[in-house]
Amino acid sequence: MSSPNVLSLLFIFTERRMAKEKLILITNDDGFTSVGIASLAEAMEGLGDVMIVAPLEPQSGMSQAITVKHPLRVDKAQLNGCISYSVNGTPTDCVKLACNQLLPRKPDLLVSGINHGSNSSTSVLYSGTMGAALEGCVNGIPSIGFSLISYDPKANFDTAKIFARKIASQVLSHGLPLHTCLNVNIPEVAEDQIKGIRICRQTMGFWQEEFDRRTDPSGHDYYWLTGEYFNREPEATDTDEWALKNNYIAIVPLRTDLTSYPTIDLLKTWDL
Amino acid sequence: MSSPNVLSLLFIFTERRMAKEKLILITNDDGFTSVGIASLAEAMEGLGDVMIVAPLEPQSGMSQAITVKHPLRVDKAQLNGCISYSVNGTPTDCVKLACNQLLPRKPDLLVSGINHGSNSSTSVLYSGTMGAALEGCVNGIPSIGFSLISYDPKANFDTAKIFARKIASQVLSHGLPLHTCLNVNIPEVAEDQIKGIRICRQTMGFWQEEFDRRTDPSGHDYYWLTGEYFNREPEATDTDEWALKNNYIAIVPLRTDLTSYPTIDLLKTWDL
Repeated sequence: MSSPNVLSLLFIFTERRMAKEKLILITNDDGFTSVGIASLAEAMEGLGDVMIVAPLEPQSGMSQAITVKHPLRVDKAQLNGCISYSVNGTPTDCVKLACNQLLPRKPDLLVSGINHGSNSSTSVLYSGTMGAALEGCVNGIPSIGFSLISYDPKANFDTAKIFARKIASQVLSHGLPLHTCLNVNIPEVAEDQIKGIRICRQTMGFWQEEFDRRTDPSGHDYYWLTGEYFNREPEATDTDEWALKNNYIAIVPLRTDLTSYPTIDLLKTWDL
Repeated sequence: MSSPNVLSLLFIFTERRMAKEKLILITNDDGFTSVGIASLAEAMEGLGDVMIVAPLEPQSGMSQAITVKHPLRVDKAQLNGCISYSVNGTPTDCVKLACNQLLPRKPDLLVSGINHGSNSSTSVLYSGTMGAALEGCVNGIPSIGFSLISYDPKANFDTAKIFARKIASQVLSHGLPLHTCLNVNIPEVAEDQIKGIRICRQTMGFWQEEFDRRTDPSGHDYYWLTGEYFNREPEATDTDEWALKNNYIAIVPLRTDLTSYPTIDLLKTWDL
């Protein structure tokens, strides 16, 4: 007769612990085995119960894409001692599957990254890391994307980890306005070289000379996407690009409402 | 001796014609052979010189994704009598390749669609059709995405064609503010049942119960993305969802600057 009671007590204890602990969902676009996601899991240690749901393969440049052409499969694994799942889809698929099928409840925080490379300025539009954060935001979860400004294969994530933890703690305390998430880019320098954290707006810019055209042995052309970033406003000190160039961490709050409100009145004057 | 002169005259004539004619780039996410893109090409006839650069295969749900894992290949073809290219990539890849490699000059207008299905409300974030329009916008091209509110395989594009032409003509005349593009959704009804064109804001909503979980013959689970749209603000008469439900065409002006400006001041009060 004692077994059910012990189980009940254990259940109540677990329930209470779960209710007390914050639930943190971690994802990324560099894939399940990347250094960046392991760094982010370490950075979140002790802030709450952590679950990882991340793409099986690298998904850089996938924006907020969803998979409609093939079904998704999930594999359970261990990563940094956390309950972890890999998904054969995009970062946004991971967030959707996590929230709809895999997590015991709606998470208190979603963190995506730490991306190995910049997601500042216009890059935010193409970023799978930020696609996941925007997806969390659509679902009413306070969400943050973290990116390290380095493409070095041996990039050092130590400073990024310290600040990811600090910023995540603040979001856990304060929450974020509905339909708003954070895009955090962090220079790859030692902690004492970081000049501070700046709240910025997204720099307006674009990519130019974007293709490396080559010819295959059969004589057919093919194109690799590449190119150089052009900053339309290099002098603007309130932008994320300016902050990063000056060794600040840049936080840009983003919204999922893409409406250009000033243009509504303009269009109403047209002959439509 | 006469040949070079004749060629020169022909060249000057062609140059002048090109300078006079507007250049219109057409793309989509349903793929090169879809009914929607042929309808859009017909709708643009006479408005300028039309070139089509569209995905070889369907790219629904690809958002503003770019292809970084494999090189892109381009095939020249004829579609609706226009110079046309198919690309083994995403809608955004198509816009990038068109602007950087395939078009003789920067287009005066980019039109994407006509998508076979809605891209209103939150769907704009996942839409490949709108990813292409946003990419045009990043590159300073007046850009419009058109979508037909029907999933019927035999959907009728006639009304959509009429209004796509009307709206494109207005954009060619007026231009659009930098970093702004248009998301146009059109009900699938006869022209005389359209109540008018409304300039709207993006409806806030999300998708729920998003997966159909199945088990394969080997006993492993797999998940199809599906689900139902939930409108957070069904009563708001200034939204695109309200307009479409009431047989209006909905135009939402979008911006590529995702910054949530009101949140900047809020974050500055945090202990960061």
